[in-house]
Amino acid sequence: MTGQNQTTIINATASNLEKEALYVVKIGGNIIDDNNKLDLFLKDFAAIKGKKILVHGGGKLATQLAKDLGIEQAMVDGRRITDAATLKIVTMVYAGYINKNIVAKLQANKNNAIGFTGADANLIKAHKRLPSDSKGIDYGFVGDIDSVNTSAILPLLQQDIAIVIAPITHDGNGQLLNTNADTIAQSIAVAMSNNYAVSLLYCFEKNGVLLDANNDSTVIPSINKEEYQSLKEKALIFAGMIPKLDNAFAAINSGVTKVIIGKAEMIELLIVGKAGTTIQHTVAH
Amino acid sequence: MTGQNQTTIINATASNLEKEALYVVKIGGNIIDDNNKLDLFLKDFAAIKGKKILVHGGGKLATQLAKDLGIEQAMVDGRRITDAATLKIVTMVYAGYINKNIVAKLQANKNNAIGFTGADANLIKAHKRLPSDSKGIDYGFVGDIDSVNTSAILPLLQQDIAIVIAPITHDGNGQLLNTNADTIAQSIAVAMSNNYAVSLLYCFEKNGVLLDANNDSTVIPSINKEEYQSLKEKALIFAGMIPKLDNAFAAINSGVTKVIIGKAEMIELLIVGKAGTTIQHTVAH
Repeated sequence: MTGQNQTTIINATASNLEKEALYVVKIGGNIIDDNNKLDLFLKDFAAIKGKKILVHGGGKLATQLAKDLGIEQAMVDGRRITDAATLKIVTMVYAGYINKNIVAKLQANKNNAIGFTGADANLIKAHKRLPSDSKGIDYGFVGDIDSVNTSAILPLLQQDIAIVIAPITHDGNGQLLNTNADTIAQSIAVAMSNNYAVSLLYCFEKNGVLLDANNDSTVIPSINKEEYQSLKEKALIFAGMIPKLDNAFAAINSGVTKVIIGKAEMIELLIVGKAGTTIQHTVAH
Repeated sequence: MTGQNQTTIINATASNLEKEALYVVKIGGNIIDDNNKLDLFLKDFAAIKGKKILVHGGGKLATQLAKDLGIEQAMVDGRRITDAATLKIVTMVYAGYINKNIVAKLQANKNNAIGFTGADANLIKAHKRLPSDSKGIDYGFVGDIDSVNTSAILPLLQQDIAIVIAPITHDGNGQLLNTNADTIAQSIAVAMSNNYAVSLLYCFEKNGVLLDANNDSTVIPSINKEEYQSLKEKALIFAGMIPKLDNAFAAINSGVTKVIIGKAEMIELLIVGKAGTTIQHTVAH
């Protein structure tokens, strides 16, 4: 190894250590569908110091609106089939009603915030998922992410404006697409790792990753890749956790500092590691 | 006058002359309700060089959605009474469906763009209009503008990102409000005049301000305050134009460089003064 290479490596490490913290927090339907829970969560979220990005899912509102309009909703493996009428509904509900109400409520908590979809400032470009990509199932206007462009959100974060992202992306050719919010949170967290030391928080209805899916007190406080593989092989991880954990480890492998999984109601404890499950890069041991 | 004061004044004038151009363009229902017209307009808008802000109205989509959901819409003097159910609808349609489709279509035209409501980055703060402000009529969740905060959009414009604003504001206490798009365009144009030489364009279904409301070829190419007063006194200005012209002169008096009124289809000609009606600050004559 030459002296020059050595210097480069040392500098890169120092630069990583100096990165400012950024929290990327994903909340789902269990919080969005309950006004009281959402208000309490947003109050806690607003109280977190530093740079923040909130990614929200959809919840039951879109399903209810479709029902009120007499538009039938087809689901395959827990995923909504997004036909043109459904895309219109999720765009209205996710990017309109939910996103703007969250932004207005954060403003009321004195947390300056701005709403985004993937189309805004070209934040997330995706392509329509083809039946050939998904066992012949035509998911309709569902988008799989191709790229994240953070150039517009960096100056906003520098002004301490929280970024609030609705799970809608675009293909660059004028087509909006319905995209999984967990995947958006992961992609954003990875992209922001170039500039920040990112903690990615997945908030859901459980206390964390559980050893016993039926016992909320069996939270694993921390887990590494080897432990996860072992638990998965023994079928001790319940199915609903697997995509979250797969995303978590993919994020860690791509530069995210840590991933934390737990209850939105405990967000203040989650970010300090006193609740939930923390997934960090496996150190040699 | 001291030498120091003189220098300050000269610098201020020089700084005004050096301001970069910014176009604030308002489009209404006649464009938004027609997909072909909207596509053509957005292609033209994307082709405009320089800094741009687009303010869009609502159109018939919200009325149609309310009808589909069986929600009755009350109108007074052409203004929608915004009850809670209607606010939810306009938030979904204006801030969700229309705003995000415009942004995605601008991206397809290689014009980077970002959608805003007044709640986003605290862009426009308003207060709920009280019956005592409006002849005893309760307009419901309608907002009158108190302040515009441009700090978040300045760095976005510097990146040549077009700002696309839906006619929804907030009161700072978590309440979204339905706000007139013409008034939003005016308030934004005035606020941006601190940093830019602003041209404010009102696009509507006529060729410009007409001498004969029934004859589209009687466009007044330019009008100043005295001419407007005289035409208004002779009842030669049709009622629908008066709020637009009142807003235009208020904008000019508050620092906007020029206001242009005409057809969205002619936007390329409007911005170079070859179509529509141009309203500029009255020079001494």
